[in-house]
Amino acid sequence: MKTYLDCIPCMIRQALDTTRFSTDDEILKREVLEHVMLLLINFVQNDSSDEYPTPPQIGRHIYRIIKEITKCEDPYREIKIKYNRMALNKYSELKSIIENSSDSLLTAIKVAVAGNIIDFGINSGEFDLDSVLKDVLNKSFGICDYDLFQSSLEKAKKILYIGDNAGEIVFDKLLIEEILKRYNLKIYFAVRGKPIINDVTIEDAKQVRMDAVAEIVDSGCDAPGIILELCSKEFLKIYNEAELIISKGQGNYETLDEEDKKNIFFLFRAKCKIVAKHLKVKVNDIILKGGKKEGTC
Amino acid sequence: MKTYLDCIPCMIRQALDTTRFSTDDEILKREVLEHVMLLLINFVQNDSSDEYPTPPQIGRHIYRIIKEITKCEDPYREIKIKYNRMALNKYSELKSIIENSSDSLLTAIKVAVAGNIIDFGINSGEFDLDSVLKDVLNKSFGICDYDLFQSSLEKAKKILYIGDNAGEIVFDKLLIEEILKRYNLKIYFAVRGKPIINDVTIEDAKQVRMDAVAEIVDSGCDAPGIILELCSKEFLKIYNEAELIISKGQGNYETLDEEDKKNIFFLFRAKCKIVAKHLKVKVNDIILKGGKKEGTC
Repeated sequence: MKTYLDCIPCMIRQALDTTRFSTDDEILKREVLEHVMLLLINFVQNDSSDEYPTPPQIGRHIYRIIKEITKCEDPYREIKIKYNRMALNKYSELKSIIENSSDSLLTAIKVAVAGNIIDFGINSGEFDLDSVLKDVLNKSFGICDYDLFQSSLEKAKKILYIGDNAGEIVFDKLLIEEILKRYNLKIYFAVRGKPIINDVTIEDAKQVRMDAVAEIVDSGCDAPGIILELCSKEFLKIYNEAELIISKGQGNYETLDEEDKKNIFFLFRAKCKIVAKHLKVKVNDIILKGGKKEGTC
Repeated sequence: MKTYLDCIPCMIRQALDTTRFSTDDEILKREVLEHVMLLLINFVQNDSSDEYPTPPQIGRHIYRIIKEITKCEDPYREIKIKYNRMALNKYSELKSIIENSSDSLLTAIKVAVAGNIIDFGINSGEFDLDSVLKDVLNKSFGICDYDLFQSSLEKAKKILYIGDNAGEIVFDKLLIEEILKRYNLKIYFAVRGKPIINDVTIEDAKQVRMDAVAEIVDSGCDAPGIILELCSKEFLKIYNEAELIISKGQGNYETLDEEDKKNIFFLFRAKCKIVAKHLKVKVNDIILKGGKKEGTC
């Protein structure tokens, strides 16, 4: 998905939020904003509809600026540990909701989407997990390629599940467990190559014991999304060989939505007006969307 | 009130909104954003806590950039006419609500505050006037210097009422009528010197027949707030001579809150987190706040 002009103010707000997590120094905050605006001026000056950057491509540069100026490598470290713990505390309750539902796979998908609210990039960490859970469990999908997803699962032997945020991964693990209960296949769980916002890293995946259900793989990329040309060979091998890819979260959607890969499914909550408009859904709609080739939308 | 770093993304969003009202040309939109970000880089580079610009001071430059690049002098002209008409259609209903209430002056104040939602700067024109009216009429004030306001009204002979937005001025007129019913005094109603966003101009004031209850005066300033050093001599004479000033809306608060004038009352809805935090109230709280010298807050 291209970066729209509306993304610019949002990116500056996100940069300011992360800078505040990184430093209390007012001068450094101003320095970050100066460099981020210079970067964005460069973006508005170069309008090429053929080769546009996606929001995570610009985001990657923004978070590099913040790291370089504030010298803070992982400002959300404590936040990530906290939300992993908070989500782990919900594990049994959610497991029971899934197991007691009439369609446990669909409920597990909804639980995984609800977890997508734990996002410090887009919503500045302002969310109420319990009310989102309640809302999502009772909600219909804005886009729902569920039948296609099930038939793809039946055919798959290897799945790549691309994770999004810390905390949220506990909800992803519940979905992975539900898939493994039904289908005999191997699952790879991809994490970010380096800390960026509260996106999942290898430490987070280990904290929630994701390695008990999936093989953890590092994307090799430090963007808040999957930029294929920056990913490691190891990741790309799995990406190309997997018969089914579950791409979790808006950032991964923004970087992979144009990929000509028939077996990719995007699972997320449309968190901003721009993405909602791009998908012709409402803000906060939940999405299970097949990829470019086979998806119904 | 100083411009906070959080105001930066909001200003860029506002600039983009107004540019879209001014032109469909993508290249011009990018040019506006480039120049607005250059202006804001200049702001973040110059941190002087003694001589900070207020948001309307920066806003004035931003809207000048938009006018110069898009060549559109008054992008909200139709919007202003539409909201004046819409508000005029509510006049009788609101008049009756005020007259039938137990404290008609307080209700008229609340009605005037409710009208403050008609703001295309801060809320991009996304508001539901009827639900805001209902909400405000049943709501307590976040800050309420009502007793002080009443005693100031009793002493005043000349009042300056500084208007904010088109449409909203019909609600201001209802408050002015209520004041005139109780007190024998002269009221001046100030409008912006030139079109800026949907702020009230002399044409708007005439459209709603404000001249039937007050003498209309042009501030001489083209900012979305009152910047005294840019106002006309005529306006400043009235400003200095008035025994009571009613400053309507957030923009006027942002430029006048530090004024050492005992007889100023700020009447508005705290529309953003920054102003709410500055005032120690909640977002959407309604405010009737006495000035720096005598105000209780």
